[in-house]
Amino acid sequence: MRLRVNVLGIESGGKPIVFLNKQDADEIGVTASARVRINSKRNELTAIVNIAPKYLKKGFIGVSEEASRALSLKRNSLVDIEVATFPKSLQFIRHKLNGKRLLYNEIHEIVKDVVQGNLNEGEISAFVTALHIQGLDLDEATSLSSSMVETGKQLKLGKKIIVDKHSIGGVPGDKTTLLVVPIVAAAGLIIPKASSRAITSAAGTADRAETLMPVDLGIEEMQSVVKRCNGCIVWGGSLELAPADDIFVRTEYSLSIDPLLLPSIMSKKKAVGATHLVVDIPTGRGAKIKSIGEADLLAKDIIELGRRLGIHSHCVLTYGEQPVGFTLGASLEAREALGVLMNKTNVPDLVDKACHLAGAVFEMVGKKNGYALAREILHSGKAEKKLREIISFQGGNPAVKTSDLVIGEDVFHLRARKAGEVLWIDNSALVEIARAAGAPKDKGAGLVLHKKIGDKVSNNDLLVTICAEKSRKLSRAQEILSEQEPIGVGDRREMFIHKVKEAPVVRRAFVLDR
Amino acid sequence: MRLRVNVLGIESGGKPIVFLNKQDADEIGVTASARVRINSKRNELTAIVNIAPKYLKKGFIGVSEEASRALSLKRNSLVDIEVATFPKSLQFIRHKLNGKRLLYNEIHEIVKDVVQGNLNEGEISAFVTALHIQGLDLDEATSLSSSMVETGKQLKLGKKIIVDKHSIGGVPGDKTTLLVVPIVAAAGLIIPKASSRAITSAAGTADRAETLMPVDLGIEEMQSVVKRCNGCIVWGGSLELAPADDIFVRTEYSLSIDPLLLPSIMSKKKAVGATHLVVDIPTGRGAKIKSIGEADLLAKDIIELGRRLGIHSHCVLTYGEQPVGFTLGASLEAREALGVLMNKTNVPDLVDKACHLAGAVFEMVGKKNGYALAREILHSGKAEKKLREIISFQGGNPAVKTSDLVIGEDVFHLRARKAGEVLWIDNSALVEIARAAGAPKDKGAGLVLHKKIGDKVSNNDLLVTICAEKSRKLSRAQEILSEQEPIGVGDRREMFIHKVKEAPVVRRAFVLDR
Repeated sequence: MRLRVNVLGIESGGKPIVFLNKQDADEIGVTASARVRINSKRNELTAIVNIAPKYLKKGFIGVSEEASRALSLKRNSLVDIEVATFPKSLQFIRHKLNGKRLLYNEIHEIVKDVVQGNLNEGEISAFVTALHIQGLDLDEATSLSSSMVETGKQLKLGKKIIVDKHSIGGVPGDKTTLLVVPIVAAAGLIIPKASSRAITSAAGTADRAETLMPVDLGIEEMQSVVKRCNGCIVWGGSLELAPADDIFVRTEYSLSIDPLLLPSIMSKKKAVGATHLVVDIPTGRGAKIKSIGEADLLAKDIIELGRRLGIHSHCVLTYGEQPVGFTLGASLEAREALGVLMNKTNVPDLVDKACHLAGAVFEMVGKKNGYALAREILHSGKAEKKLREIISFQGGNPAVKTSDLVIGEDVFHLRARKAGEVLWIDNSALVEIARAAGAPKDKGAGLVLHKKIGDKVSNNDLLVTICAEKSRKLSRAQEILSEQEPIGVGDRREMFIHKVKEAPVVRRAFVLDR
Repeated sequence: MRLRVNVLGIESGGKPIVFLNKQDADEIGVTASARVRINSKRNELTAIVNIAPKYLKKGFIGVSEEASRALSLKRNSLVDIEVATFPKSLQFIRHKLNGKRLLYNEIHEIVKDVVQGNLNEGEISAFVTALHIQGLDLDEATSLSSSMVETGKQLKLGKKIIVDKHSIGGVPGDKTTLLVVPIVAAAGLIIPKASSRAITSAAGTADRAETLMPVDLGIEEMQSVVKRCNGCIVWGGSLELAPADDIFVRTEYSLSIDPLLLPSIMSKKKAVGATHLVVDIPTGRGAKIKSIGEADLLAKDIIELGRRLGIHSHCVLTYGEQPVGFTLGASLEAREALGVLMNKTNVPDLVDKACHLAGAVFEMVGKKNGYALAREILHSGKAEKKLREIISFQGGNPAVKTSDLVIGEDVFHLRARKAGEVLWIDNSALVEIARAAGAPKDKGAGLVLHKKIGDKVSNNDLLVTICAEKSRKLSRAQEILSEQEPIGVGDRREMFIHKVKEAPVVRRAFVLDR
C-alpha cells in the first residue's frame, strides 16, 4: 500500500515507530505493536505500528523522528508499506525461552535487530527475561559482547597498550575514577575512560566529572582529548559504543534484573580498544556483590571473558560495606576528589582504593610497586596537574577551585540519639535519601557523612548532613529519614538487627549502574 | 508540574500513553517508557511516557485517546504530572522471574495493573515469559482465571444451568461450534457462546459466524439474544470478558508461547456464567496437542481448574491429524456447516464430532444417550431451525441459503502427480496456503479438500481447490504450494518423510487461537 508521509516530530526512544489510520492498518492487516516494512526510494526499514484513528487521515502514514531520519523522509513523500515478516531473530529469542544455548550468529542477529528497531519492547524484554532465568554461559556472554561492539562505534587510537578501569558499582560515593584516570595518565599510559551517569545511584562518574568539565563528547572529540593528554573522563552514553546495551538496560532497570552485566561492561571496554583492564568489585552486605566467594566467581568470569575478547583483565575486590569517602552527590563528590588531588583533604579510604586500582593497572603493564608509584604520583601533585589538563582539553576551567563547586544550601543535620560506635551504614538508605534530596539531577544535592563504621559517637554528635537545592526536596529526604535509619550507632554487644512484620514492605534496593 | 493538555487522537492499543516535550521530561526526571502519574480534577491515571521534541511545545502534554478517555480530558485543560512510583505489581512479576509461586492477591495486582495500563509492554512480556519458563501451577492458574474475570465484564443470565463448549484449537476447518450451539440450544439448554476470530488460523468461529450474521454484539445484546432463543454465537473480543487476556495474547503471539492457555479459556467461561463445560482437545501430529498422553494430562488440569472455579468440566479428545470436514476459510466453512444442518451436504467427520460434543453436553446435565439425541436433533431439522432463530435475533437474514455465501472466484486446482492413497495431510501447510490466499481477512478466500486421509487417489485427481478474492493473493498461495506439499499421496510401504538439510528453514507453525 502506498501512503503519504507525515513527519510527526515524535521521538520514541530509539526504535522507529509509525502511525497508521485504522482503516489503512486493517487493509494492510496489522494491529498496534505489529511490524511493517517501509520502502522509500532510497532505503527500507521495519517499524512498529501505532494506530491513530482521528489524527491521521486515511492514506497517510505518521513517522517518528527515528523512522524519518533512518529513511531521510520528507513531508508528503510517498512510501510503500507492507506487513513485515517476523524477524529471524525472534526465532532465536524463542530458542532461549525454551532453554537452548545460542550461537554467535544467532545472538548477533538478535543484537542487530535490537539496534535497528526490528524488535518491539515486549520481544526485547522476553529476551532479557529469558537470559535472567535461564542464565547465559561464557560463550553466550562472549557472543553478546562481540555483537554489541560490532553494532556500535569504536575508538581507534592506534596504540599498542591501552588501559582501562571499571567498577561494577554498587557502593555509593565512589569517586575513585576521578583519581585513577589522572594518576594513570600522569604515568604516561593511555586511558580513554567512558563513564555512565547515575541510573539507580546518587551520582555516576559522568555526573561527578560534569561538575568540572563537559563530558558530553562525541567519539572524535574523545579521541582528540586522549591523543593530547593520554586520558579523558567522558560520558559513554553519547558515544554509541554499544547502542544495544542502552536499549537492554531500560528493560533491566524496570525489572530490577541485570543478566547483561558482563557483556555490557566488556563490550564497552573492547569498543574503546582496551588491552589491559582492572575491574573493581566492591564487596559487602550493602554492595551489589554481597560475599567474597561471589566476588571471586564473578572475577573468574570477567577474566575469562576478557581473555576471549583479547583484553587482559585483573579484578580487585574492595570493601563495600559503606560509602567510599565522606560524600554522596555529584558536586560534593567532585569537591572531595579535587581536594584529595590537591592534597588539601584527607580521605584515607578513597586514597587507598584509588592507589590499589591505579597500582593494579601499573603492575599489569609491567611497572613495579604499583601502589607506591600511584601514591607518589598523587602526592607529588602530578595527578592534579593531569586532571587539570584533561579538564582543559574537554572544555572546562583548568583553574577550578573546590569552592567553585556549588552545594545546595538547604541543609538538614542528622544527629546521634545515643552514644556508642557506628556499627553499620545502610548504603541503600543513604542513596535513597540523597536521591530524594535531588541527586543525581540536582548536582548540588547529596549528603556528607561525619562518621563511618567503627567511629566513636557521643550523644547528639553530627552523623549526616543532607544538602538540597530545593527545600521541597529536602523535606522529601527528611520524610525518608523518619522511616529509615541509615547509620546504626550502638554497642558491639547489641544483637537486634530489625523486625519483619506482617505484609512487609520490601524496599527496592536494586543497583544497576555499571 | 502543571501542563496543558493536547489530545492527539492517537490510539496505542489499550495502554494510555502521553507525549512530553524533552525539556519537561528532563525536569520531571523521566525518559521514554517511564511512567508518570497524571492528576486531573476528576481522576488520576498512570501513563507511559513518549518523548516528542518538536511536535509538542514545552508546557504541553500530548495524550492518547486511551488516556484522554480515562480522565475525560479536554484540549487545553490543565493536569498535574509527577513521576509515578513503581507499581507494586512489578515486585510480584520480579518474584515470578526469580522462581517464586505467586499468591492470589499478587496475581490480582498484576492483572489489575495490566488492565489499567500501569505496566508497560516490556514488563507484561517479562511476566508472560516467566510464566512460560517457570511454569504456573493450578493455584496460580486459578488465581489468574479469577482475576481476569473480576477485571472484566460478566454475563448475568440468572439461570441455574448454563452450558458451554470450547475447543482448545489447533485443527483447521473446525466449524463444529456452528453445529453444536444450535443442537444444544434446540434441546432447551442455555449456551451463551463467545468465540474468537482467527489469530494464526484461516478462520475462527467468529469469522465463520460473521458470514451468516453480525457477531460484534455488546454484552447486553448478547444477553437479550440468549434470553430469546437459548443460544448465540458472538465474537468474544467486543465483550471485554477478560480484557487482561486480550493484552497477554499479543505478547504470546509474537513470542509463539502460550502459558496462559488454561486461564484464558476458563476465565471467559466463568465470565459468561457457565456451570457445565465440554472442552474439545483435538489431538494429532498436526494439531496443537500432539499425543494422547499429553491431551489426557491437559484434560486433567482443565477439569481440576474447572472444579476450583465452580464449572463442571468434561473433555473430549478428537482426531486432529487432518482438517475437520472439507473446507478452510470463513465463507466456505459456513457454507459447509449450513449444508450439513440443512441435511443437504454429507460431511461424516464433522457430524460425528459435533454429535460427540453436543452429546457430552447433554450427558453432563443428565440427559441419556447424548450422541443419539444430538444426531436426532440434527437430522430432524430442529438444529437448522434454531440456527436460523439465532441468526435472526443477532440481526442476520434467517432465510440465508448456502449459495448466498460468496466464495472467491480466483481458483487454482492442485492435482495428484501420482496414484496411491492419501497418507498424510499437513495442517499447517494448508493453513499457510489459505492465509496466503486471503483468509481470514477475505471471507471468501480459503480452500476445498477433495481427498482426505485414507482416500484412494488416481494420477491427476483433484486434491485441493484454492479460492481467493484477489488474483495477487492467489499467486502468493501458489508460491507456497510450489515449496510445500500439503497432501502426501503414496503407497503405504513408502518410508521417506522428508530431508533436513544444512541451515534448515524452521517454519513457524504455532497455533495460538483458543
